[in-house]
Amino acid sequence: MNGAETLVKTMLASGVNVCFANPGTSEMHFVAALDNHPEMRCILCLFEGVATGAADGYFRMSSKVTATLLHLAPGFGNGFANLHNARKAHSGIMNIMGDHASYHLRYESPLRGDTVGLSQSISHWTRVSDDAASVSGDGAAAIRAARSMGGQIATLILPANTAWEEAVAPRVSEAPPALRRPSDAEVAAAARALCLPGAALMVDGLALSGELSLLAARIAKKSGCQLMAPYLVARIQRGAGSVRMQRMAYRVDENIAMLADKSNLVLCGAVRPISFFAYPGKVSLPEKPDCRIIELCSIDMDYAWTLQELADVLGAQDVLLGPEDFQPLNLPPVPTGAMSLDKVGQAIAALIPEDTIVVNEANSSSQIMEAATGSSRSQDWLMITGGSIGFGLPVAMGAAVACPDRKVVALEGDGSAMYTLQSLWTMARENLDVTVVVFANHGYQILRIELANVGVTDVGRNAERMFDLVEPKLDWVSLARGHGVDAACVTNADQFAAAFGGAMKKKGPFLIEVVC
Amino acid sequence: MNGAETLVKTMLASGVNVCFANPGTSEMHFVAALDNHPEMRCILCLFEGVATGAADGYFRMSSKVTATLLHLAPGFGNGFANLHNARKAHSGIMNIMGDHASYHLRYESPLRGDTVGLSQSISHWTRVSDDAASVSGDGAAAIRAARSMGGQIATLILPANTAWEEAVAPRVSEAPPALRRPSDAEVAAAARALCLPGAALMVDGLALSGELSLLAARIAKKSGCQLMAPYLVARIQRGAGSVRMQRMAYRVDENIAMLADKSNLVLCGAVRPISFFAYPGKVSLPEKPDCRIIELCSIDMDYAWTLQELADVLGAQDVLLGPEDFQPLNLPPVPTGAMSLDKVGQAIAALIPEDTIVVNEANSSSQIMEAATGSSRSQDWLMITGGSIGFGLPVAMGAAVACPDRKVVALEGDGSAMYTLQSLWTMARENLDVTVVVFANHGYQILRIELANVGVTDVGRNAERMFDLVEPKLDWVSLARGHGVDAACVTNADQFAAAFGGAMKKKGPFLIEVVC
Repeated sequence: MNGAETLVKTMLASGVNVCFANPGTSEMHFVAALDNHPEMRCILCLFEGVATGAADGYFRMSSKVTATLLHLAPGFGNGFANLHNARKAHSGIMNIMGDHASYHLRYESPLRGDTVGLSQSISHWTRVSDDAASVSGDGAAAIRAARSMGGQIATLILPANTAWEEAVAPRVSEAPPALRRPSDAEVAAAARALCLPGAALMVDGLALSGELSLLAARIAKKSGCQLMAPYLVARIQRGAGSVRMQRMAYRVDENIAMLADKSNLVLCGAVRPISFFAYPGKVSLPEKPDCRIIELCSIDMDYAWTLQELADVLGAQDVLLGPEDFQPLNLPPVPTGAMSLDKVGQAIAALIPEDTIVVNEANSSSQIMEAATGSSRSQDWLMITGGSIGFGLPVAMGAAVACPDRKVVALEGDGSAMYTLQSLWTMARENLDVTVVVFANHGYQILRIELANVGVTDVGRNAERMFDLVEPKLDWVSLARGHGVDAACVTNADQFAAAFGGAMKKKGPFLIEVVC
Repeated sequence: MNGAETLVKTMLASGVNVCFANPGTSEMHFVAALDNHPEMRCILCLFEGVATGAADGYFRMSSKVTATLLHLAPGFGNGFANLHNARKAHSGIMNIMGDHASYHLRYESPLRGDTVGLSQSISHWTRVSDDAASVSGDGAAAIRAARSMGGQIATLILPANTAWEEAVAPRVSEAPPALRRPSDAEVAAAARALCLPGAALMVDGLALSGELSLLAARIAKKSGCQLMAPYLVARIQRGAGSVRMQRMAYRVDENIAMLADKSNLVLCGAVRPISFFAYPGKVSLPEKPDCRIIELCSIDMDYAWTLQELADVLGAQDVLLGPEDFQPLNLPPVPTGAMSLDKVGQAIAALIPEDTIVVNEANSSSQIMEAATGSSRSQDWLMITGGSIGFGLPVAMGAAVACPDRKVVALEGDGSAMYTLQSLWTMARENLDVTVVVFANHGYQILRIELANVGVTDVGRNAERMFDLVEPKLDWVSLARGHGVDAACVTNADQFAAAFGGAMKKKGPFLIEVVC
């Protein structure tokens, strides 16, 4: 049994059975080993950023680690941006980066690169396998690392000879180390703070949906504090039946206003609120100077246990929640007539089925879509946690692989979708149930806003041509069809509703270009 | 004058007047400064790998440093793979990576990342500007670094506040340090070695074209040695009138055969021959064990001077070169009938105009194209120096910007072209004179070959689906039109010749999908 074979067996024995791959020559023995194990689902991606984003989306919807297979330093580099988003989402991913045979690395060959330095600039855990006998143990350690601290980026670098040389036996990954917990005294102090005037509890992670969000709501109700959520989150339950929370915003001024009445902010699983960017004359920290920030439990600690403890201390476990604690169901009529973003939002709100997964990379159009769907049927929204555009289509892809019975809707800016448009091909190949809505405003609208935010109002030719995507206009119907995905371009609300409604009733990928 | 303004003025004063850009918020002041200087040519790229590849192509054809503008760590990550190719091509590039304001970096915001670690994993030179007053000096130093050692990757990280805060004055980049030279004794020893039986001189860089290639030919003729070139080179003159050289190959066995009669290999500007990959049971070093490798002068030294010295020592300056030293002109007839790769090669050979720039990323189809065009009209070929696919379209783009009066032909595998297909949009916007030929063999053919190379002959479903790009087939005509580039799909030799011949006579981008 060679090293590659022991690695595949180790992965399968440890419960890692999906691999998003863009392999090259140095990974050929690994591909050969995969070939002997049809129980490993290999999904080919035509660009590495698609693979890493898909692994992120898969983890967000399943809490399960998958593997990516990447080709030396440049292949890993192509995956970097979506590893950045995944890291900020606290997703667990096992990257397998092939490298040259160890004895070949001393020579200056074309593909030789700083695999370790590159990996360390984004991974929580990096290891180079020394020899074939080490590969299974290193693989098990990588899986454990990816599952540690709630989810980490773990990168195993495999010199080609460690894959083809004779190895010993597969291994099984050990359980990750227990998560750290705050002390009883810290929990008690936080519980007291939540009962003070102007108190808020900010949660993140799995506390934004399901049972844990109900627990958070009971804590808030019992203590009388405001329940809050960060602006960009890996996953949040929205729509009818979801717990009401006050979510932070993109704009600095909105965040300042939202925190103006907060004197005690308890963070459980959440990072303290920070402005997305710094701007001249604007603050990084949106809270009042005298607001007390209580960092009770970070996202890589045991925030589920901590919420239980908080509830126990407060006697909140049996608090009855009422309709006022949840978003109501309130479906708008399907709109007609001329196109507007509001009508697109209404149509989406009216037509998405229960349990839709919405991946939101609509950027300048996203606030309208969020507002419109707040009382639609229950949804999970996945956000651009690391702010690096190009996350949406791959994450939608991975979510669809993880949840084959749920409809996935990807809301995309036309600028953003271009970074990883190769995702469309894999959606077609795997017949993934993703409806892509591209808002074709033909420009980086968000940058026009940002230029104004930094104080520039008079836009000349050099800047204008950095923002507009006309000359030529992208034709998303052609782009989709080129990748094997059927598509439609819509110019009024009736057309959008017909196309979107049709897509909601069918399985498989479909793209709608919204001219707005 | 703010820091951004001093940087743009420093760049212009130092002769850097092209910027391939994919900016974001943290670069808005830089964009505003660019806006005041229309003499800076800003070219928008819809993906960062397009920007870095274009800067590489521009340098290869002009020896001039251009800038890229990239958005924080993820934006730089997207540019990594083509910086890898550029580094291996010894191209000089100045990357400007925006970052958060320095005072904002202490907080965990979405886009915070390890900008320095990432840059250092690929750049020769990395610096973070401390304050606005430093930006012009740091910019001048970055340009100098990019021009040093014959061409380097220099990355200047600009915290946003250094761009918007008040600065002092622009600067002008100093000349790069003098290139190192070998000693007289080393040159004399190398000259003696070249006169021994079984001697070869391997050159690279600018010695593969123009005057320096003539000088290398005279040295070879006088000493009686074989003139050689590496397999993957940044730029090489080919076709009629180019100097005959023996170029190394991709396959290990071919290289072993080529070096079997070599006992003294003098390297002047070239790296010692290394197998592209290591394979089980195959060597990394293709030369005979007793072959003497004489590393006279590396590519980051003064190899032009060194060749002059070698010629002087050997008395080769006035050697007369004859027709036997050059490739002849020998145009094949335009082929007709059924499609074959040989006929595509013939048609290209027959139809390309004088001084065509050919960017070769045809991978499994490239050997046939190279063989076919050896006696065609004079061409410059640009190769995939770092082995990272996705280099071709961006490098073609940059070459076309650098040489607006020359036809550029990009030969692309369908798998390779997918990595950076967004290049097509910029070709359309800038009306660049690039004809793209996509060999639609619907698969990573090169990987099938590689799987066989590592000894696997029986290919199952998991491996098969890593190699084939069917289910669905990519439709390159739609992909091109989606980006605003006109295109045709051809299925026989007559159609190819008509489409390619038409493209050679027109200006502007055009894509031909060759079904083969």
